[in-house]
Amino acid sequence: MKLATTYGYLKKDLNQIEQALEDTVKESQPVLHDASLQLIKAGGKRLRPVFAMLSSMFGDYQFDRVKNVAVSLELIHMASLVHDDVIDDSNIRRGETTVKAKWDNQVAMLTGDYIFSRALEKFTEITEPRAHQLLSKTMIELTSGEIEQIRDKYDLNQNFRTYLRRIRRKTALLISSSSQLGAIVSHTSDLVEKALFRYGYNIGMSYQIIDDILDFTGTEDQLGKPAGSDLLQGNITLPVIYALEDPYIKNELERIFTQKEEIEEKQLQPVIEQIAQSSAITKARNVSDLYLKKAYDTLDDLPDVKAKNTLKKIANYIGSRKV
Amino acid sequence: MKLATTYGYLKKDLNQIEQALEDTVKESQPVLHDASLQLIKAGGKRLRPVFAMLSSMFGDYQFDRVKNVAVSLELIHMASLVHDDVIDDSNIRRGETTVKAKWDNQVAMLTGDYIFSRALEKFTEITEPRAHQLLSKTMIELTSGEIEQIRDKYDLNQNFRTYLRRIRRKTALLISSSSQLGAIVSHTSDLVEKALFRYGYNIGMSYQIIDDILDFTGTEDQLGKPAGSDLLQGNITLPVIYALEDPYIKNELERIFTQKEEIEEKQLQPVIEQIAQSSAITKARNVSDLYLKKAYDTLDDLPDVKAKNTLKKIANYIGSRKV
Repeated sequence: MKLATTYGYLKKDLNQIEQALEDTVKESQPVLHDASLQLIKAGGKRLRPVFAMLSSMFGDYQFDRVKNVAVSLELIHMASLVHDDVIDDSNIRRGETTVKAKWDNQVAMLTGDYIFSRALEKFTEITEPRAHQLLSKTMIELTSGEIEQIRDKYDLNQNFRTYLRRIRRKTALLISSSSQLGAIVSHTSDLVEKALFRYGYNIGMSYQIIDDILDFTGTEDQLGKPAGSDLLQGNITLPVIYALEDPYIKNELERIFTQKEEIEEKQLQPVIEQIAQSSAITKARNVSDLYLKKAYDTLDDLPDVKAKNTLKKIANYIGSRKV
Repeated sequence: MKLATTYGYLKKDLNQIEQALEDTVKESQPVLHDASLQLIKAGGKRLRPVFAMLSSMFGDYQFDRVKNVAVSLELIHMASLVHDDVIDDSNIRRGETTVKAKWDNQVAMLTGDYIFSRALEKFTEITEPRAHQLLSKTMIELTSGEIEQIRDKYDLNQNFRTYLRRIRRKTALLISSSSQLGAIVSHTSDLVEKALFRYGYNIGMSYQIIDDILDFTGTEDQLGKPAGSDLLQGNITLPVIYALEDPYIKNELERIFTQKEEIEEKQLQPVIEQIAQSSAITKARNVSDLYLKKAYDTLDDLPDVKAKNTLKKIANYIGSRKV
């Protein structure tokens, strides 16, 4: 099943958001324009817009208002990806050359700054002060998460909790904010808004953990980048944390991470395959399922509108996600 | 004369802003906290807060409102400096090691992102939608200016107009926005708001041109960085554009900029001294004076309040500025 089929009825609105994304980065400065457009054209699931729209449907759905939220959030997500690629020194994402690889780190930094400014410009259309406060707090968490990611790189002594806090800040909060902002601009009840926030948060956590699993179990073709990229970049994800309980894997990784020479892909290949075959995958999967269950639970607090069924289908999709 | 003596009566409010700047970047994440605090402690003239406060005095001055504007703008300025140092590969600013030198480019990028997020958080306290629109448009211009700076580096064929557009985006607009935002939050008349915008814009242009002159005529001790740093980083400022009319200087620079090896400081030293001694300095000074005159002219549109006299004194100071 493809994710998009679960919310086919949003297609018309999503197309408009796609167009708005392109229009928003229209810019006379050619490098900024080309780099931004490349990011948009590379696609992505547009999860944040989808969650904002679906959440908005629990209140007074007005597309023009939720469109601004959706476009802003997707642009902020993109801006953070461009900066992420600088941090992770990534040359490829979604099968495409990254901005930092096609131009350089400096252009990537400024492209991120630019897209972020455009996101804010769009967000000024939103009148609810609470929406602005929520967005800025989310941004602060996002950057804190990013700096934690740098700090924790190649650190084999980090634990379960460090990992969860990092993905909460780096991924889950922007998704939960998407849901909550959709609710805010359509003026749902407090109870509904809180439930949507929790749904987004738990789905976001579940989703990221599966992403981190797929980085081991997926193929390069499926992932749009080589398998094991996270570990090669020094990012210690949940499967690795569990796999480190195996003394052999722990020794191997310690040996490779402390060597003087730059780490090569082929050196890590055996460990990556061992992790992919190990029980660490199942353990990580169980944690993801726990968050997924919590996401399902929040649905009980939501009224029976069409969007609720779609949120359930998205949860089903994420639970069955192979890539 | 020191600039601060012209607005001594703002001292108490400025101290509170200083404290607010520190409080705003209080953060549990130590790297972000240390890097941000270092930037704040390195000082600076706090021009943007000063202009915001003075402009606010033409309306219903309420410190708590203008404080949020002042803190936001100074933080945005700082965030752009941290990113600038990555672009320019600068290891020293205001006599202090830069964030990118003390940590690295990645930390500097994220510190900029973080400070920027904190600025936005502060700005959410401001209720006027027009203020938010102005700020986001200014941010877009700022990032466009920064990418133009990269594009124009080492380009000896750029002209007067390219330079002016770049400093307009990179410097003048954030200063004019400071003035205008001060006016907006204190609800001055339209005429006054526009005059304050023009004052800030013209002062900003004049100020930046003098900064670019001082980079040639100042000493390392006065500048807090080596003289000629701009040229060494490939930034072609107004004195250089005028100096390129001299075929000898043009040849020398072309030769050095097209060499294969990295450019060393001592190679540029003779050219830097020639530019400092040339008529290019006077010509650039004349352009700065032209903007300064325009800044004075805008004062005619402003009512006679104490702040007007201070704006005049600041213009006098900038006109007489040696370093």
